[in-house]
Amino acid sequence: MTRSSSPDLDKLLGHAFPVLDDGFVRLVDYMGNDSSIVQAARVSYGDGTRKVSEDRALIRYLLRHQHTTPFEMCMLKLHVRVPMDTWRQWIRHRTASVNEYSTRYSIAIDRAQMTPANAWRQQALDNKQGSSGFFASDEGERFSAAEQELHRLSKQVYQQRLDAGVAREQARKDLPLSTYTEAFWQIDLHNLLHFLALRMDSHAQLEIRRYAETIGEKIVKQWVPATWEAFQDYRFGQMTLSRQEQELLALVVNGQTEMADAWCAKSGWVKHKEERRILSREAKEFAVKLASFGLTPPW
Amino acid sequence: MTRSSSPDLDKLLGHAFPVLDDGFVRLVDYMGNDSSIVQAARVSYGDGTRKVSEDRALIRYLLRHQHTTPFEMCMLKLHVRVPMDTWRQWIRHRTASVNEYSTRYSIAIDRAQMTPANAWRQQALDNKQGSSGFFASDEGERFSAAEQELHRLSKQVYQQRLDAGVAREQARKDLPLSTYTEAFWQIDLHNLLHFLALRMDSHAQLEIRRYAETIGEKIVKQWVPATWEAFQDYRFGQMTLSRQEQELLALVVNGQTEMADAWCAKSGWVKHKEERRILSREAKEFAVKLASFGLTPPW
Amino acid sequence: MTRSSSPDLDKLLGHAFPVLDDGFVRLVDYMGNDSSIVQAARVSYGDGTRKVSEDRALIRYLLRHQHTTPFEMCMLKLHVRVPMDTWRQWIRHRTASVNEYSTRYSIAIDRAQMTPANAWRQQALDNKQGSSGFFASDEGERFSAAEQELHRLSKQVYQQRLDAGVAREQARKDLPLSTYTEAFWQIDLHNLLHFLALRMDSHAQLEIRRYAETIGEKIVKQWVPATWEAFQDYRFGQMTLSRQEQELLALVVNGQTEMADAWCAKSGWVKHKEERRILSREAKEFAVKLASFGLTPPW
Amino acid sequence: MTRSSSPDLDKLLGHAFPVLDDGFVRLVDYMGNDSSIVQAARVSYGDGTRKVSEDRALIRYLLRHQHTTPFEMCMLKLHVRVPMDTWRQWIRHRTASVNEYSTRYSIAIDRAQMTPANAWRQQALDNKQGSSGFFASDEGERFSAAEQELHRLSKQVYQQRLDAGVAREQARKDLPLSTYTEAFWQIDLHNLLHFLALRMDSHAQLEIRRYAETIGEKIVKQWVPATWEAFQDYRFGQMTLSRQEQELLALVVNGQTEMADAWCAKSGWVKHKEERRILSREAKEFAVKLASFGLTPPW
Repeated sequence: MTRSSSPDLDKLLGHAFPVLDDGFVRLVDYMGNDSSIVQAARVSYGDGTRKVSEDRALIRYLLRHQHTTPFEMCMLKLHVRVPMDTWRQWIRHRTASVNEYSTRYSIAIDRAQMTPANAWRQQALDNKQGSSGFFASDEGERFSAAEQELHRLSKQVYQQRLDAGVAREQARKDLPLSTYTEAFWQIDLHNLLHFLALRMDSHAQLEIRRYAETIGEKIVKQWVPATWEAFQDYRFGQMTLSRQEQELLALVVNGQTEMADAWCAKSGWVKHKEERRILSREAKEFAVKLASFGLTPPW
Repeated sequence: MTRSSSPDLDKLLGHAFPVLDDGFVRLVDYMGNDSSIVQAARVSYGDGTRKVSEDRALIRYLLRHQHTTPFEMCMLKLHVRVPMDTWRQWIRHRTASVNEYSTRYSIAIDRAQMTPANAWRQQALDNKQGSSGFFASDEGERFSAAEQELHRLSKQVYQQRLDAGVAREQARKDLPLSTYTEAFWQIDLHNLLHFLALRMDSHAQLEIRRYAETIGEKIVKQWVPATWEAFQDYRFGQMTLSRQEQELLALVVNGQTEMADAWCAKSGWVKHKEERRILSREAKEFAVKLASFGLTPPW
Repeated sequence: MTRSSSPDLDKLLGHAFPVLDDGFVRLVDYMGNDSSIVQAARVSYGDGTRKVSEDRALIRYLLRHQHTTPFEMCMLKLHVRVPMDTWRQWIRHRTASVNEYSTRYSIAIDRAQMTPANAWRQQALDNKQGSSGFFASDEGERFSAAEQELHRLSKQVYQQRLDAGVAREQARKDLPLSTYTEAFWQIDLHNLLHFLALRMDSHAQLEIRRYAETIGEKIVKQWVPATWEAFQDYRFGQMTLSRQEQELLALVVNGQTEMADAWCAKSGWVKHKEERRILSREAKEFAVKLASFGLTPPW
Repeated sequence: MTRSSSPDLDKLLGHAFPVLDDGFVRLVDYMGNDSSIVQAARVSYGDGTRKVSEDRALIRYLLRHQHTTPFEMCMLKLHVRVPMDTWRQWIRHRTASVNEYSTRYSIAIDRAQMTPANAWRQQALDNKQGSSGFFASDEGERFSAAEQELHRLSKQVYQQRLDAGVAREQARKDLPLSTYTEAFWQIDLHNLLHFLALRMDSHAQLEIRRYAETIGEKIVKQWVPATWEAFQDYRFGQMTLSRQEQELLALVVNGQTEMADAWCAKSGWVKHKEERRILSREAKEFAVKLASFGLTPPW
């Protein structure tokens, strides 16, 4: 008997995939593969081994029905280089094992994430925590110049403190959040998929999304292809319908417009204030789902 | 670059070490080795690689000073066969990943842990949750016969239910706790050492101790020898001295008997009731520690 | 400032809700209420307090969009009495704090869960881990009689061991899984809702479902009514549609039958073997969803 | 029945204890008290209630023997205001529930931690991750002036970005690590004691130590006085002796100097290189422990 392995992933061991201007995701080690998930699930079922086609079907079944424990039986260990700003979001996932570069023990990494002139994003108006569209280059150049000047001064102040003998743990206190850090980050596949579902989402901040996409597309996809496919179908690409949405969808697809109208009024999804129609946030969210089926809302 | 590995452990892959009358611990997979711990720690220090002798020293330093995160960077996956009674204690460790054989889905394993006539243990008198000494064989034989009769009836009732078409999830309800179950159990090395420290301890119940010893001596020792040695020295074999014990030890080793007496009285460790001297539980625990140094308590 | 509280829940403190023949769920303590969730969420938003109607809307928004951390800010502590068989499923939820009655330290609870003659369930034919329908009373009576006899013998063997001085930790080894145990079980609201979503589900075993329903309906509903309502709408009562199901639903609701047929063939959902039509498991699952909208599948 | 409470802590609800120049620790909510720990432990023992003096003894026993689960039965919820630099250390404790102020959603808190002229610390020479002693005021004034200038520029760049409409999620990227953040932080008592043991330690960075001391002395001590006392005696104030240290201590206290010398040579604790005696790190650590007993090492 030998260890479970993934020949496609073995080729990537030690490889660093670049992200942002100076970051990376580097594959350090892993345990398990698609078959390990199946193997663990079959312990529960008291089952022996089967054909590969049945393995794929079982993985899809497990993911579809949220039988999550077999997916914990695969581990991934990455070495990542990330701006501290992004790392602050990343580290909120508590289920990983982490060893981070210590700027208390060592001199900070001499590099902060820099923004090209064409990469400054405008505040989204409809979403307080989002961005929407980019600035024109000339305006972007002014932002980038100011960023550069701030990085220069930060670096100078940090260096002066170190040169004068200030303790590293204190000298670092005013480094910009854009300063790169590095870490070993180890997580099981179940929790990794949860991380990816949240951080590959269009609502995730662009920077962490770039890391999540790299981990997903460049690494997980090669590592556990059947799981990755099932993840796309049942998790990342899934739609959820609330109790209310199911009720209203039934009315819409059966052409019961009057009842649908009554439903909207009663539920408070659609209100009328003088001449204006006011839709609740849920109503707007539902309209987007309906549109994906080529259907129009009752209002 | 290739995956970290442990050649000594590779030889044991798939091997099942027997435990109790019909249990086992089987090595399924692993990730990492002693060097993986060092590698993760050196990310924190921003350090490159060093000599093996320095690796050992670093591992000892990390374990001695409770720098626990690098030890999370090694994973072990076992297939175990355990009486449910023992499993109830095992599963209390919440930091592992588990897939257990389902007696809801499948027919229960047709085997319960049986006790040889010479293995029946007497209730400890000084420890409500312990045992102390064995019964004589003739008495043990009576216990074993009754055990066998109970197993026979349990099995018969279970089989009759299944034969009549009772749902497996309900038919199993009266199986004895000694019924064997199986599981895949995956845990990182830090949490595994915590498990072993508790379950190899002389206060742990004999049955789970047998499993812990097997995992420790047969598997962990071959897998991460430097860590295992450090674990013996700094965790499993360590002694702790409370604030009070430190104070009293200082008095004892300096021959300050009067002050030691006063200390014992004031602290309430030693009380006198009529003619009798009553020692607190802490005092008794301290006396055992003193004895290990060839010292006698002040009372 | 005083502690957050829930007057409706305060009335239930110490109350034991009966479950099964001799089990219970007793409310011991709690922290937080609906407003605590809102309060924690508003720290993230840097927001002040608002009207109660806005609180409800925020709770619904948080739950709908899986902003789960604010729900961790409420804690529930229960004292439960449960057959060990059921407890084995319960304890698999690793995110709770647990102190269980120790049959190593104390004599086991003198009570095993007994099944009335009309409560024996038949093995489901379409679901290996389910039951379906009850046995007739006369057959049930035979099962109950055998159950009683087995309980009697188990108890007798246990008592004989204790009387002879066998260590409690060993004497208990053959108690039936139906033996009641007790525990303090403490969990935060986010993880509790996850527990309830899984264990109130129709696929959960009847016994643990009774406990989950009791916790949900009798306790959580009074404690955090806005959260409970949102849970019903967005979690417990939600439907998920995979990528494939969304594609096919779009074809069905737009009456594109030919394309739907082609889709079914291409995806492998519908196969034909000689005269017979074979539906994949996913196809069958989708048909149930369609039916809930009054729609028929294309096959 | 009413909820468990701690009258001394009730008086502190809502109170913010200042830490550093603009930070605080504010008590928001809690669950349980010393009696809750006892109550949970006695479920395990199947025991009823006892006298308060016995409660204290039981708490001490539990903490001394690492029976940690009953301490999970108390919860503390704090509102903290902390420099992000310190928060980066804080958040590494994964067992807490957290809701942090979002600078993606809201404008960052307009305050960075400032260092008085007399509070600049020198790099420790013997400890790469420590500080040792303070700078003279005149040098400190130069550091503080540079700090102020850097804060001014950072703030200006941030404000210019916001004014021009840069997305908040991106505008924040160069804020200094000293910028204050706020969070709700909820943790159970067992994990809190672990946090305090590490972060009140003399090796912890001064800033987080100030927070830990505030939480410990101002809050935990009033909340669970018996536990706090036991924590001081058995955890925070405890000494550990490795296997090797126990061996050598036995030789030292029994005046077996020759054997002690031989032990030191054999173990590699003491080496001689030409004229110089070289002590291993473990030897130095042991000498400190010996000194606390008024004993001198054999070398």
